[in-house]
Amino acid sequence: MAEKGLQEKRALIQLAQEYIEKGAQAVNTALDTFLPSEQTPPKTLHRAMRYSLFAGGKRIRPVLCLAAAECCGGSWEQAMPLACALECIHTYSLIHDDLPAMDNDDFRRGRPTCHKVFGEAMAILAGDALLTIAFEIAAQAQPSSRYGVKDYVLELARAAGSREMVGGQALDLQAEGRRITIHRLRNLHLRKTSALLACSVRLGAMSAGASKEDLKALTLFGRNVGLAFQIIDDILDITVPTEQLGKTAGKDIAAAKATYPALIGLPSSRQEAQKLTLQALEALQRFGDRAKVLEGIGRLLLDRKY
Amino acid sequence: MAEKGLQEKRALIQLAQEYIEKGAQAVNTALDTFLPSEQTPPKTLHRAMRYSLFAGGKRIRPVLCLAAAECCGGSWEQAMPLACALECIHTYSLIHDDLPAMDNDDFRRGRPTCHKVFGEAMAILAGDALLTIAFEIAAQAQPSSRYGVKDYVLELARAAGSREMVGGQALDLQAEGRRITIHRLRNLHLRKTSALLACSVRLGAMSAGASKEDLKALTLFGRNVGLAFQIIDDILDITVPTEQLGKTAGKDIAAAKATYPALIGLPSSRQEAQKLTLQALEALQRFGDRAKVLEGIGRLLLDRKY
Repeated sequence: MAEKGLQEKRALIQLAQEYIEKGAQAVNTALDTFLPSEQTPPKTLHRAMRYSLFAGGKRIRPVLCLAAAECCGGSWEQAMPLACALECIHTYSLIHDDLPAMDNDDFRRGRPTCHKVFGEAMAILAGDALLTIAFEIAAQAQPSSRYGVKDYVLELARAAGSREMVGGQALDLQAEGRRITIHRLRNLHLRKTSALLACSVRLGAMSAGASKEDLKALTLFGRNVGLAFQIIDDILDITVPTEQLGKTAGKDIAAAKATYPALIGLPSSRQEAQKLTLQALEALQRFGDRAKVLEGIGRLLLDRKY
Repeated sequence: MAEKGLQEKRALIQLAQEYIEKGAQAVNTALDTFLPSEQTPPKTLHRAMRYSLFAGGKRIRPVLCLAAAECCGGSWEQAMPLACALECIHTYSLIHDDLPAMDNDDFRRGRPTCHKVFGEAMAILAGDALLTIAFEIAAQAQPSSRYGVKDYVLELARAAGSREMVGGQALDLQAEGRRITIHRLRNLHLRKTSALLACSVRLGAMSAGASKEDLKALTLFGRNVGLAFQIIDDILDITVPTEQLGKTAGKDIAAAKATYPALIGLPSSRQEAQKLTLQALEALQRFGDRAKVLEGIGRLLLDRKY
């Protein structure tokens, strides 16, 4: 796959862009039916949850879930509750991450963060509620030929839990202001970012009753795409201004965060992201043309400008 | 049941005390195996989770879950994962509730709160991780004759979510410093406290494959015990000193919280708690002697001094 021509790569990225657009629309529609309305008491809490959930996120995780489901012969319909659960978890993690006690960020997805609008206490509760509803939504997914609700919930809880996503956040906190090795940074990113991205493709594949071998390949894809994604994120934090980024730029340096660019510089970081993306794409080979969309999304994430 | 003699009531309370002691021990042992050790990275996060989880809580919710399971012909073994999940959710809610942005409490269960020991950011993450692991643990419960993991997870997520427990916290926040009606206060308590207590007995019963009618009766028991429990909590906040309470006393008045004593005074609050407890016990009549422990716990919670 590595030797594809520029035109072919562009076509794949184009395909991915269209897929993401359609997928995000479908996810937004489904999320709207899963979430309590703003008229449901307690109204302020539900307003806060919806404010952050419908802030125009790119919906990368749920779309990866949908694409993985299709890649394994499943459907959007089967994968949709799991896709929505993933986005709820991602959004809760952003709300809590932006809190003054954590990254203290005033902007996210181009508008004031949840706690700036609703206050810290309500933002904490909105995050808690989004995390909780993620499991309520996931439990509504139909069992597939190989997996049931138990498998879905275990998968989601482990990827989002103390050994993975939240664990990565904890390591991130502790690494602030310290010089850590590239090995430790990789470990941190694997938990903080890769775990939920790998979980996204895995859950989609599980909803389609994918084989263990297919799941293994997609896990490799998700982990490497996740690492590349985080490195690109760190690069963009340095190179792109706030207006374009939708969140405060330059935060990592200000907070003395451990990042790839800080440790190995920008050019090597770009190379590393490229290498990881190619490794991710190699894992897709077994799927042939069925993985076109996933390949396009992998390439798009590497090329993204914000 | 209301007309029982003093000696009979004392015997029931004694029975409940012994049951709680044994149940709490079994719950602690099970929680210890479900939770990652303090040696599992990220260590600080796991230390923070365990610090709050093993702070000597009374384990009322998990023990209610175990007692309800037995009342419906089930076993501790079947109910245990659900019991542990309930305690993880309860503990996370305390950690987040104690945060400076929320109730800003320095003491809980007789020692410094999680954020006082580990810092605010780590306390937020420890709460998030305990909420997440609750679902990982619950998903490991065995299906019963009538209910499966899907039912368990939906039950737990709904009781802990934005319409119930977290919703009650949000209403509580918004009620601070405002004069609200007793009707609204009751609604707030039903969400904040009763929902998870009712969920506790329901999940225990579900693990035993209880009938819809048994579940309905236990829901009524749980809701009324929950309301009584919260009223007693509010009374103790006023009447018991900090050392004995294990958490800062007098906080409700300081924060101008909406409470029963603030609205209708101490004597009427005590009467109301008594009335609710009797209503709760009436709901147990269909179970006959099998509900002895639950009755004892109901009476004990009314009589508790801290």
